[in-house]
Amino acid sequence: MNNPFFRNHGPILIHEICKLFEINIAGIKENLEVVDIKDLQSSKDKDITFFHSKKYKDLVKTTKASYCITNESLKNELPKNCIPLVVENVLLSVSKLTAKFYPDSINDDYDDTATNIDETKFKEKVRYGKNVLIGANVSIGSNCYIGHNSIIEKNVTIGNNCSIGSNTIIRNTIIKNDVKILDNCVIGKHGFGFFPNNTKNLRYPHIGVVLIEDSCEIGCGSTIDRGSMSSTIIGRNTYLDNQIHIAHNVRIGENSIIAGQVGIAGSTLIGSNVKIGGQAGISGHLKIGNNVEIGGGSGVIKNIPDNTKVMGYPAKNIREFLREK
Amino acid sequence: MNNPFFRNHGPILIHEICKLFEINIAGIKENLEVVDIKDLQSSKDKDITFFHSKKYKDLVKTTKASYCITNESLKNELPKNCIPLVVENVLLSVSKLTAKFYPDSINDDYDDTATNIDETKFKEKVRYGKNVLIGANVSIGSNCYIGHNSIIEKNVTIGNNCSIGSNTIIRNTIIKNDVKILDNCVIGKHGFGFFPNNTKNLRYPHIGVVLIEDSCEIGCGSTIDRGSMSSTIIGRNTYLDNQIHIAHNVRIGENSIIAGQVGIAGSTLIGSNVKIGGQAGISGHLKIGNNVEIGGGSGVIKNIPDNTKVMGYPAKNIREFLREK
Amino acid sequence: MNNPFFRNHGPILIHEICKLFEINIAGIKENLEVVDIKDLQSSKDKDITFFHSKKYKDLVKTTKASYCITNESLKNELPKNCIPLVVENVLLSVSKLTAKFYPDSINDDYDDTATNIDETKFKEKVRYGKNVLIGANVSIGSNCYIGHNSIIEKNVTIGNNCSIGSNTIIRNTIIKNDVKILDNCVIGKHGFGFFPNNTKNLRYPHIGVVLIEDSCEIGCGSTIDRGSMSSTIIGRNTYLDNQIHIAHNVRIGENSIIAGQVGIAGSTLIGSNVKIGGQAGISGHLKIGNNVEIGGGSGVIKNIPDNTKVMGYPAKNIREFLREK
Repeated sequence: MNNPFFRNHGPILIHEICKLFEINIAGIKENLEVVDIKDLQSSKDKDITFFHSKKYKDLVKTTKASYCITNESLKNELPKNCIPLVVENVLLSVSKLTAKFYPDSINDDYDDTATNIDETKFKEKVRYGKNVLIGANVSIGSNCYIGHNSIIEKNVTIGNNCSIGSNTIIRNTIIKNDVKILDNCVIGKHGFGFFPNNTKNLRYPHIGVVLIEDSCEIGCGSTIDRGSMSSTIIGRNTYLDNQIHIAHNVRIGENSIIAGQVGIAGSTLIGSNVKIGGQAGISGHLKIGNNVEIGGGSGVIKNIPDNTKVMGYPAKNIREFLREK
Repeated sequence: MNNPFFRNHGPILIHEICKLFEINIAGIKENLEVVDIKDLQSSKDKDITFFHSKKYKDLVKTTKASYCITNESLKNELPKNCIPLVVENVLLSVSKLTAKFYPDSINDDYDDTATNIDETKFKEKVRYGKNVLIGANVSIGSNCYIGHNSIIEKNVTIGNNCSIGSNTIIRNTIIKNDVKILDNCVIGKHGFGFFPNNTKNLRYPHIGVVLIEDSCEIGCGSTIDRGSMSSTIIGRNTYLDNQIHIAHNVRIGENSIIAGQVGIAGSTLIGSNVKIGGQAGISGHLKIGNNVEIGGGSGVIKNIPDNTKVMGYPAKNIREFLREK
Repeated sequence: MNNPFFRNHGPILIHEICKLFEINIAGIKENLEVVDIKDLQSSKDKDITFFHSKKYKDLVKTTKASYCITNESLKNELPKNCIPLVVENVLLSVSKLTAKFYPDSINDDYDDTATNIDETKFKEKVRYGKNVLIGANVSIGSNCYIGHNSIIEKNVTIGNNCSIGSNTIIRNTIIKNDVKILDNCVIGKHGFGFFPNNTKNLRYPHIGVVLIEDSCEIGCGSTIDRGSMSSTIIGRNTYLDNQIHIAHNVRIGENSIIAGQVGIAGSTLIGSNVKIGGQAGISGHLKIGNNVEIGGGSGVIKNIPDNTKVMGYPAKNIREFLREK
């Protein structure tokens, strides 16, 4: 999915990029234009992408990108059409360059474009409470409700028949139809992604969005962070209870049920028809299959195949867990 | 406890109910009126109740209800005065019928009856901050404080000497005297109860309230859901720390102390003088005795008798836990 | 660190204090003035301190306090210059006396000194959203942002280049430079400290502050309680993710990274360069060294030395944990 909200300040000349990374590429024409920065899959001709882990060595073969930020040990995996930019720290370089293409994606200060809904075109169309604020680049469908003190910050698309609670803040988010978001949520802020640095940590850009599909419900006090290079997605008819935290780049399938205080760490993929008990935690970069059940309080630290019930910390097959205890 | 807030749209004729459930009852008079839907214990003559689990087979003997929604395998447990309505899925049918008696209990959209406290009778009586909203059917005792941006939504009764923090939202709740509810809480919203359905989940009605007894304190960022058929109750002088989640129908006794980030799942009963350490989680439908101590981080998945100290996941006797580790 | 915000209502005569505790001190001059109440370390001549646990028997030798609240079994550890006040329950007596010196430190009702920022001197200096409130005794440096509906309550100092999100509440807090506090946080409220009492629990005073050093970031929906006798401190360039709870008197070092939904119980000290995974919980009164890594979901119940990686519940060396599982 392309980033629909942040304006691309590209193209950027390849020699500007080389200068930024303090590298040279033998024989390259200096004034070639690089159009955009994307992940391996969605990149096209004249785009730059990145490749930082062997995990993606099959995917890298298929990239259409013209340039790829990578390191010495991975550069030989690239397809021929793709020119390597070899750097020390791939993700740090990606971060620096993304900030050049999308300077607006780093800063999550309060939205100063937000104005009282009474002064907007939504005044007629939406049913809303007191002190509702609407930012720039917002669209809202028919038959929607927005509760008191809620802030629909910039870059939000809401479909039809949606109900937003009170004291909720939403930004950089696409909400489809028949969605309910309850009170005190914060949706679409940047994730907890940065490069640690003892002087001052360096935030990396989050150019992804949160996408909430049809008929979802998000419980009170939940936080869902937007993606960094891709998006955070909650699938159709998936229900989240109160005080849940969904980190950046997480994708959850359809018809899943997630109980209170669950936390899902960054970039984990969850299947459809998944049930997760209260307070369970799921580590980052995992793949949880379809029809999986995860017992309350579990700590999941490895992939789980389809149709499996697990429990425990670390989570294991539920029968094994209960037999051992 | 009866539901004091939602208007009963009954009586409903028994043949309407049979039509709703797509069943026939041999020889029943069609125009009999059913007055209300209640649990086994609080039902009276002309009420309808429900019986869906063998766990309640002793209780069902004592019900005063004239009708009972149940299934084929349980119907013979009913007392003679009580006519069974045999359905496939008891709770689903209860849900559908409750929605007929109490149509207002399903929808938890923002409270559009709420108006600025400056325009209400509470202006003189209550000490309050900026931007405080008060909904319909609210009463507030003497010497109370309500903080900035807080919303006392419809159906709330607050006693004397209570202090509500800022950015807090309360609905369908009875608060006794000397209670403190701190900032950013959401109290009285419907619980995480619904029937999963791959097209669109079906919410079940929540006609219960939250009842907070004298001298309680509820910490910042906590959520307490109201009950579905019964109520969620926090006993006298019980203290909750920050970021706690109490699910629907939970009852907690007196003088209990619950540390930060604890979660208690639906319908669990907690005794008096109970101490629960931070981040502990307690599964649903359990019974935790009096004078129980539950160590921080524990995951409780079975009943705990009085006067017991437990720890671990799953929680066990604390000595056993510490010896094993 | 001294309490900078609560006004000391002392001095109090020693015979008033004896009367409060219902004790006699043989031969003491009744009209001696006691200037302040402080911990063992920061007390000076004419101050009163307290000593309630053998853990502090080395520290007590060095106190400069003229008086010390202690019990029968500990009184002989005091240095000669320090007169013991022997009571049954040391902390309860400390609490009662602190309430005499600092009566304003007990009550955390909403801040009725807060007024709209439009009516304050910050109108020109700060960039701010709608409905921002500012309490008494607030100072804010240059180039700061405060989001919609946020409340900077009384007794807050904010440095330069800080960004406060929306719907956030801050009180009794010192924020240095380049700090970001995201949406829906509550910072600086009293901790979960009280003396259980079956009639009505007795809150103990919290005369400490929250101190947030340069370049920190605090994630959405987090709560940080202020200290009781000392302060709660977040060290330079330490980052907290969403929905974290930091209890009173906790101190965290520099350059630490704490992932979502972590909870740290009261008075625990965390070193620098510490990494804590999501949902980990750390018990109170522990000492976690520098360069420690704590795996996600861990429950830490004992001290951890420098340069150690732990995981599990209870947390142990990570290799041991993974080998066992």
